[in-house]
Amino acid sequence: MTYSAEKLNEEKVFKDPVHRYVHVRDRVIWDLVGTKEFQRLRRIKQLGTTFLTFHGAEHSRFNHSLGVYEIVRRIIDDVFDGRPEWDNDDRLLTLCAALLHDLGHGPFSHAFEKVFDFDHEDFTRAIILGETEVNKVLKNVGPDFPEKVAEVIAKTSEKKIVVSMISSQIDADRMDYLQRDAYFTGVSYGQFDMERILRVMRPREEQVVIKKSGMHAVEDYIMSRYQMYWQVYFHPVSRSAEVILTKILHRAKQLYKENYAFKHEPQHFTSFFCENVTLEDYLKLDEAVIMFYFQIWQNETDLILSDLCRRFVNRNLFKYAEFDPAKEYKKLAELNVLFLKAGIDPEYYLVVDSSSDLPYDFYRPGEEEERLPIHLLMKNGELRELSRESEIVDAISGKRRTDHKLYYPADFLADESTGKDIKKQILALLE
Amino acid sequence: MTYSAEKLNEEKVFKDPVHRYVHVRDRVIWDLVGTKEFQRLRRIKQLGTTFLTFHGAEHSRFNHSLGVYEIVRRIIDDVFDGRPEWDNDDRLLTLCAALLHDLGHGPFSHAFEKVFDFDHEDFTRAIILGETEVNKVLKNVGPDFPEKVAEVIAKTSEKKIVVSMISSQIDADRMDYLQRDAYFTGVSYGQFDMERILRVMRPREEQVVIKKSGMHAVEDYIMSRYQMYWQVYFHPVSRSAEVILTKILHRAKQLYKENYAFKHEPQHFTSFFCENVTLEDYLKLDEAVIMFYFQIWQNETDLILSDLCRRFVNRNLFKYAEFDPAKEYKKLAELNVLFLKAGIDPEYYLVVDSSSDLPYDFYRPGEEEERLPIHLLMKNGELRELSRESEIVDAISGKRRTDHKLYYPADFLADESTGKDIKKQILALLE
Amino acid sequence: MTYSAEKLNEEKVFKDPVHRYVHVRDRVIWDLVGTKEFQRLRRIKQLGTTFLTFHGAEHSRFNHSLGVYEIVRRIIDDVFDGRPEWDNDDRLLTLCAALLHDLGHGPFSHAFEKVFDFDHEDFTRAIILGETEVNKVLKNVGPDFPEKVAEVIAKTSEKKIVVSMISSQIDADRMDYLQRDAYFTGVSYGQFDMERILRVMRPREEQVVIKKSGMHAVEDYIMSRYQMYWQVYFHPVSRSAEVILTKILHRAKQLYKENYAFKHEPQHFTSFFCENVTLEDYLKLDEAVIMFYFQIWQNETDLILSDLCRRFVNRNLFKYAEFDPAKEYKKLAELNVLFLKAGIDPEYYLVVDSSSDLPYDFYRPGEEEERLPIHLLMKNGELRELSRESEIVDAISGKRRTDHKLYYPADFLADESTGKDIKKQILALLE
Amino acid sequence: MTYSAEKLNEEKVFKDPVHRYVHVRDRVIWDLVGTKEFQRLRRIKQLGTTFLTFHGAEHSRFNHSLGVYEIVRRIIDDVFDGRPEWDNDDRLLTLCAALLHDLGHGPFSHAFEKVFDFDHEDFTRAIILGETEVNKVLKNVGPDFPEKVAEVIAKTSEKKIVVSMISSQIDADRMDYLQRDAYFTGVSYGQFDMERILRVMRPREEQVVIKKSGMHAVEDYIMSRYQMYWQVYFHPVSRSAEVILTKILHRAKQLYKENYAFKHEPQHFTSFFCENVTLEDYLKLDEAVIMFYFQIWQNETDLILSDLCRRFVNRNLFKYAEFDPAKEYKKLAELNVLFLKAGIDPEYYLVVDSSSDLPYDFYRPGEEEERLPIHLLMKNGELRELSRESEIVDAISGKRRTDHKLYYPADFLADESTGKDIKKQILALLE
Repeated sequence: MTYSAEKLNEEKVFKDPVHRYVHVRDRVIWDLVGTKEFQRLRRIKQLGTTFLTFHGAEHSRFNHSLGVYEIVRRIIDDVFDGRPEWDNDDRLLTLCAALLHDLGHGPFSHAFEKVFDFDHEDFTRAIILGETEVNKVLKNVGPDFPEKVAEVIAKTSEKKIVVSMISSQIDADRMDYLQRDAYFTGVSYGQFDMERILRVMRPREEQVVIKKSGMHAVEDYIMSRYQMYWQVYFHPVSRSAEVILTKILHRAKQLYKENYAFKHEPQHFTSFFCENVTLEDYLKLDEAVIMFYFQIWQNETDLILSDLCRRFVNRNLFKYAEFDPAKEYKKLAELNVLFLKAGIDPEYYLVVDSSSDLPYDFYRPGEEEERLPIHLLMKNGELRELSRESEIVDAISGKRRTDHKLYYPADFLADESTGKDIKKQILALLE
Repeated sequence: MTYSAEKLNEEKVFKDPVHRYVHVRDRVIWDLVGTKEFQRLRRIKQLGTTFLTFHGAEHSRFNHSLGVYEIVRRIIDDVFDGRPEWDNDDRLLTLCAALLHDLGHGPFSHAFEKVFDFDHEDFTRAIILGETEVNKVLKNVGPDFPEKVAEVIAKTSEKKIVVSMISSQIDADRMDYLQRDAYFTGVSYGQFDMERILRVMRPREEQVVIKKSGMHAVEDYIMSRYQMYWQVYFHPVSRSAEVILTKILHRAKQLYKENYAFKHEPQHFTSFFCENVTLEDYLKLDEAVIMFYFQIWQNETDLILSDLCRRFVNRNLFKYAEFDPAKEYKKLAELNVLFLKAGIDPEYYLVVDSSSDLPYDFYRPGEEEERLPIHLLMKNGELRELSRESEIVDAISGKRRTDHKLYYPADFLADESTGKDIKKQILALLE
Repeated sequence: MTYSAEKLNEEKVFKDPVHRYVHVRDRVIWDLVGTKEFQRLRRIKQLGTTFLTFHGAEHSRFNHSLGVYEIVRRIIDDVFDGRPEWDNDDRLLTLCAALLHDLGHGPFSHAFEKVFDFDHEDFTRAIILGETEVNKVLKNVGPDFPEKVAEVIAKTSEKKIVVSMISSQIDADRMDYLQRDAYFTGVSYGQFDMERILRVMRPREEQVVIKKSGMHAVEDYIMSRYQMYWQVYFHPVSRSAEVILTKILHRAKQLYKENYAFKHEPQHFTSFFCENVTLEDYLKLDEAVIMFYFQIWQNETDLILSDLCRRFVNRNLFKYAEFDPAKEYKKLAELNVLFLKAGIDPEYYLVVDSSSDLPYDFYRPGEEEERLPIHLLMKNGELRELSRESEIVDAISGKRRTDHKLYYPADFLADESTGKDIKKQILALLE
Repeated sequence: MTYSAEKLNEEKVFKDPVHRYVHVRDRVIWDLVGTKEFQRLRRIKQLGTTFLTFHGAEHSRFNHSLGVYEIVRRIIDDVFDGRPEWDNDDRLLTLCAALLHDLGHGPFSHAFEKVFDFDHEDFTRAIILGETEVNKVLKNVGPDFPEKVAEVIAKTSEKKIVVSMISSQIDADRMDYLQRDAYFTGVSYGQFDMERILRVMRPREEQVVIKKSGMHAVEDYIMSRYQMYWQVYFHPVSRSAEVILTKILHRAKQLYKENYAFKHEPQHFTSFFCENVTLEDYLKLDEAVIMFYFQIWQNETDLILSDLCRRFVNRNLFKYAEFDPAKEYKKLAELNVLFLKAGIDPEYYLVVDSSSDLPYDFYRPGEEEERLPIHLLMKNGELRELSRESEIVDAISGKRRTDHKLYYPADFLADESTGKDIKKQILALLE
């Protein structure tokens, strides 16, 4: 029997709080889960700094990756298998891409990508194609199988239906993370009737479509996503931690460039500081490593670095004020001056952070993250774009919502031992 | 107003997936949560190595500590307050002891305590009484308040009712962890009707007692605990990770004593290796630090240390066989010899691990962990020990169950490049 | 102690699957629950014919009434009590009105009200003010207390805040039924974070308002309501049963007027047929009585009555087709003629049914069911109408959605033994 | 295609709160659900009088029957199909037997069977084999198919494995009702990990066996069952309603025999009173009919009948005292005399009610309800009876628990207008 068709003697399961059980019967999947690159995802939180706001959100990307795999497996085995529009030869490809889609994520990805200017998706590709355990397993399936998996994840694959199962406006990725993040944070917003959505999914050449009878379940899913963004993912307290984290990385990079003498050599970081990260270095970076450095940097002589690390480790975060850039840009300039006068470096201690989300859109040609609209399969076999049928979705379609906040260290400003008057002015402007 | 009586302007809540919300109105509690010693509990998993078996079990002791606090708060505010047998002056003491009861836990406590011979409870006491932020907050309540809190946690307090709320056979600690660990692992075993148990709890001088009408809910709780022990806490795969973890620590300590030259100075560990741990060193130790060292130790030249670290980090665990010491001690001796012959050090690679639990007991005088039996409050006001009323509890009362397993590296034994015949002999004995 | 202040010796609880427990400490509430008029609500399903679509929806109005009471109790005792804007003297009035707000509902209320031209709210009032056990209990509180309770339920009370807790766009009634109906049907749509909404409710003279920080929870609640209407309450299969039920009542009334000789004297119905219903007659009418008659009417000689009853009892329902009155009125006229030709009385067998819902509206002056908009309490103390702050709510605000369907007996039309050609024509028009 | 192999065009689902969805693909199953005999189960509560204690328990046997079908379907399609020990030709037989196993239940079965001396299982058989819609559907499968289904339900079938799936100590019937009754009452006791149990079930010729690795899940299931019996099914308040119900039926039968002139001819009951019930009469009897008669009998001139009916309809139940027959038989005799003296007929107003359950037993040869023990499938392929492996089950195995209570009308005894002294004596004896 070929490796790709090999089944385990007995089905294996992972107990999963969201899907009850994750079922594995394919040898390939079992072997992939066992690789060290996949196990590394256990050391990277799914929601980065969110656990500092919602203490339950300590779950890892390992969790989520298994969940996405399980959803795709159920779509294929329970719904698509046997339908003429679905080619079951794509099954293993789809399962592997689902399992591995987040493989290149590092710890606190967004902050790292921003500060060190790289894209985690490049590392996903590098891990799949490079000299790794994952690559070895995939190559056993076929010499070009790693490339095929990478293409699906990169959305460049010709198999559009496969791509759409993992990356679209109603994909297994989103369906898993909404439910999972809701479960671990304890909020109720992320719940929707996934069972129903799975049952009404149908394969078409270009994408997965949804039977019209399931439209309300899809509406509910889109509203869940909207709520999760504003209630959980963009929560201003988590954003505050994100702001501090970003500033720590900035500061360390800056110090490195200035040849600052770190008490403890930041060897895990040097290739990042130089923006020349190798795959080997990248794979070593996990949250334990980050937190180790943040702990020891609390004792660095640089006051900004040590202060920011203490804030992050001990959850002594910045406070925030609403900020409207269009109207308040002058105030911001004024605040910058006052911070300088008060001896508080505004580059690190006065930060504008913006959150923005587009709950659903039917057509965004040429945009960076161009995504297919959701199509409904009508009784007569035609396809209709969701917002033409759903008033609710139509009402929010294409409406981007953006929110800006201004973060600052309230404790510094409350300290009246120095610059009392200037601080009073600052506080007056902030409130 | 005194600090101890101070209330927050508005009640604060933490969203909690188990209790929905954790409510805080007391300034003291709020301040304690904000201390760095308490925040440190975020970096210590509640269930140590269990996440390698149940991938959802990534929650921290921070989570659990808030949960125990919330349960105690509800017992006091919703059930005990106003009853003549309860002195509400003990409220704050009880809340603080509940919140802080696990404060001295380190990462993977059991393995560390065993290898480095200390007791985390001593550190709980040290943190509460030493020069810490926690101590500062508690002292604000009163100069002897830290000592009082420490006594409750150490079970030496005269206030037996307070002690029993946090440490007894039906305490807030157990009620929280059973539910919480069930929630995060996703198993159903830890569920019981806590609402009902809380409603039927009554304060008595010596301990909390349970109204007879709630007996069945208590039976269900005891069975939940029994199931969680055998299904989750003693799961052989988690035990395997625990075995490897313990052996890593053993090996590192051994190497240190032999003046082995570590590539990377294990500065966070030296005082542990010398069994002379200071509070300051202890507080630095969290799971990030441990995992950082385990990662870099994968590159140490000592083959045993690097191999064990690779196993732990990449979840390449030992397999296990059932083992009955009474009958198979000879076989174990034989295996030791064969392992030596095969060039596999049995001290690190052939490990007996034993799990043992006593689901409930009514009387264990003089034993190390002597715990009060559960008493039922009968309609006529008398107290009766639980197992006299409940047939189910009587049936399992005092019945200790012990399980032994023999752990070994199946991959080493499967490698036929060396010692093929000896390895065959070993495998024959193990199966 | 006055009767109104009397407390039970021990708090009583009802185990409730939605709120876990319903807590009763007031003697008045306990006594009201025990009256035969309140117990009668056990024999009236909360969702009428919905159980024929969602088999779990067999729960009664008794269930729901306790739930509304419990929500109001929690709002008052956990959130409002102690706030200067809330007069706790209104507590008992509010609790009683909450408990009794549906007291006048009969079996399958909407169909009965329509056919026999009465309003169940008049009977709520009649039960509260008439010679009933409920009235006796309320009078014990004070001679004008029944009138006060009736006024709150009728929304004519001066205590607008009290009225708004029970009847507004975000009241205890809606919050209970959405969650309860979702629980019993098993759909996920009705879930929202009620805990959070309760925590952010604040009393104002005119109405309950919601702290701005809880806006997203309110959005989620409004979307839940929208989904429940279209997914559950207006489900076309339940509507089909409702259509048949209405036609049974029509037919029976018609036959009575024509002096038809019922085999079994419909004594429970006669005052309804004459549209002259006394309170005594009304209280005798419950679902058991209705179903008893529908069972025996299956054997009546009138073919329409017996057929419709068989359909309802054995769930042999009408099929439906989409219908757009504006465009298809001619088709309907045509179908009427064809039905007559085919020997199928269109008055009973060709029925247009319309469902309509307005998910939220901010201002509907002068309309029949004029309801207060939801107001948000901003940080600066001002009130702002919800749709001005929430884009989601703004998008759906005031948008009434209406749906029409045409119901017909597919089995009759499939029977080719008579009028085959005409039936073919009918089916062609219907499809 | 033969009727038995016919599939629906699209799978149909019923939304179910316990199993999420019930899936139907077989035409036969769909047709059976549509029969009027099966629809009749909607009008019979699953838990009889329990709704008077747990108000959520208003669910019908229709609900439960679909649930048992769904569990059996999942065992066959997800676990057994393809295993050599399972003959998939038995699939339809098993599904039909699962769906129809409770078909002969009437309203409040136990009370009716006791008073009118019949066995509902005879009616199950009669419905399956008689002139019914159900019979017609089954006959379409094959002329002897109805008989085969009846034999499985009657446990006389040679296909022991099929019988054991529906009637054994761990069957689909029990697994559904424990979870369902827990869900609707809202108690947590009935929860266990059914997913896990299904996964470890294996077919053997004589019965379904359970892989050893699933033993703890089975222990949990047995404890759930134990708790549900004592916490829900035997709840003394429900038993009180059951006692009154039984006494109503007794009284009515007695009056009929004495030629009492009922105001309203009890035509639905006459064949019951004569203990000569036809299938046609039986099928007419549902809870609506019972409740209709109980309502009108409140106005009968016989004081006992009207009083008991008022009690049942308005939930004005009997109180209870613990009763130990072995020790208190004399007291009972004494109470009988005192009741007679007080003018309260002890035959109807002083009732001993006994509840008894055997949580698990391994061997009960020759007993009425002889049931197979549960067997574990060991790794080596041997079978071992559960209690030999499980200490918990061993501890409770074969231990029958019985509880007796004495029911009486507390309100009559509190009425001091007559027989004050005797009543005082009675109350003294009862307390």
